[in-house]
Amino acid sequence: MNKPAVVLLSGGLDSATTVAIAIRDGFDVHALSFSYGQRHSTELEAAKLVAERWDVAEHKIIDVDLRAFGGSALTDDIPVPKDRPKDAISSGIPTTYVPARNTIFLSFGLAYAEVLGSVDIFIGVNALDYSGYPDCRPEYITAYEEMARLATKSAVEGSDVVSVRAPLIDMTKAEIVSLGIGLGVDYSLTVSCYDANSKGEACGRCDSCILRKRGFEEAGHSDPTRYFKPVTVA
Amino acid sequence: MNKPAVVLLSGGLDSATTVAIAIRDGFDVHALSFSYGQRHSTELEAAKLVAERWDVAEHKIIDVDLRAFGGSALTDDIPVPKDRPKDAISSGIPTTYVPARNTIFLSFGLAYAEVLGSVDIFIGVNALDYSGYPDCRPEYITAYEEMARLATKSAVEGSDVVSVRAPLIDMTKAEIVSLGIGLGVDYSLTVSCYDANSKGEACGRCDSCILRKRGFEEAGHSDPTRYFKPVTVA
Repeated sequence: MNKPAVVLLSGGLDSATTVAIAIRDGFDVHALSFSYGQRHSTELEAAKLVAERWDVAEHKIIDVDLRAFGGSALTDDIPVPKDRPKDAISSGIPTTYVPARNTIFLSFGLAYAEVLGSVDIFIGVNALDYSGYPDCRPEYITAYEEMARLATKSAVEGSDVVSVRAPLIDMTKAEIVSLGIGLGVDYSLTVSCYDANSKGEACGRCDSCILRKRGFEEAGHSDPTRYFKPVTVA
Repeated sequence: MNKPAVVLLSGGLDSATTVAIAIRDGFDVHALSFSYGQRHSTELEAAKLVAERWDVAEHKIIDVDLRAFGGSALTDDIPVPKDRPKDAISSGIPTTYVPARNTIFLSFGLAYAEVLGSVDIFIGVNALDYSGYPDCRPEYITAYEEMARLATKSAVEGSDVVSVRAPLIDMTKAEIVSLGIGLGVDYSLTVSCYDANSKGEACGRCDSCILRKRGFEEAGHSDPTRYFKPVTVA
């Protein structure tokens, strides 16, 4: 019997790839998604499709009201930046950063893992594209893992220690796309756009769309993303 | 102007004392409570009364569905232990432990603090009474703080570092009661019982009631707790 793992699944490109990696590595995937008041809530429909596609052991969607705090273009009345050049995307912390989001999501993942008797939590963070996101950096993931190893019953009762697995953390988007296609990921199911419409169609102009589109181009794969209208990357 | 701080406020004895300490220490208190599917939801009414009593700057109550995971007598169909002797309470991890609860609550506290521009998060954990609770131990709090210092904008942008303040961590319940009474805490407003009824009356027999009652006795203060019926501690 495979070991259970919790995989944080947003419904975007990175987390869909992470599900495929966890399955490749022999885990029974317990996918965890969040309805957190995100502007691009159609990503949750994508998460359901990805979970079904991989026939995961379980898929939970948790309500978490991050609009209670706001402070982000994804959870507050702040416009999503559009048409930014790649060097602007890669420097500083964009307004789409959601305060403490990964810390909150990993903490729910930790609770889920503990109840499952699992010590493996996968998260599809990536440190290259958004070098400014504090909670995507390797040193953050390491510190989270160290905290998690002290946080749960297994810390006291001496069983296995928690692993926070971030297999994409130092990959380029093109490398992620190539790996995912090799593993059979159907990226047409996924939604990365921060401003997707209710049909899950992408704007093609937000940071996330721009990085995703370049990833397919650089990987030499056709882009299966459904856009509102045809988009040209500058 | 005082500095803002986030204070996790359950509505119990420890967190009410922690609010008073944060105010004594000159902080503007932004209290944070959670409706997490807890059996003893009347503690939230107590939290509101405590927040009003201290006229805090803000009091947010966040919905967090920990029943989605279960695994605890507080969030699942598991009976609350009653009439346990003190040495049993103080050893092992009781079924009232909620997986990763403090990690989740602190993570919301971190989000709230980041949006407020605060770096101070108070939590009323105590390592003495429940020495088995993994997420009440000093080494856990230290590790959480180290993770939090890498998690947010201030980690990247170089402003103040996050402090996770646990002023009660090495105090006995009697010491906490004495301190709180000195600071003007009205413990009649608070609910500690894991199995409180809808009026906020306590069972007097769960671990939390037993520890609380002994705390008042050892501190030499009369116990203002409202019980279902008169209780004698063995």
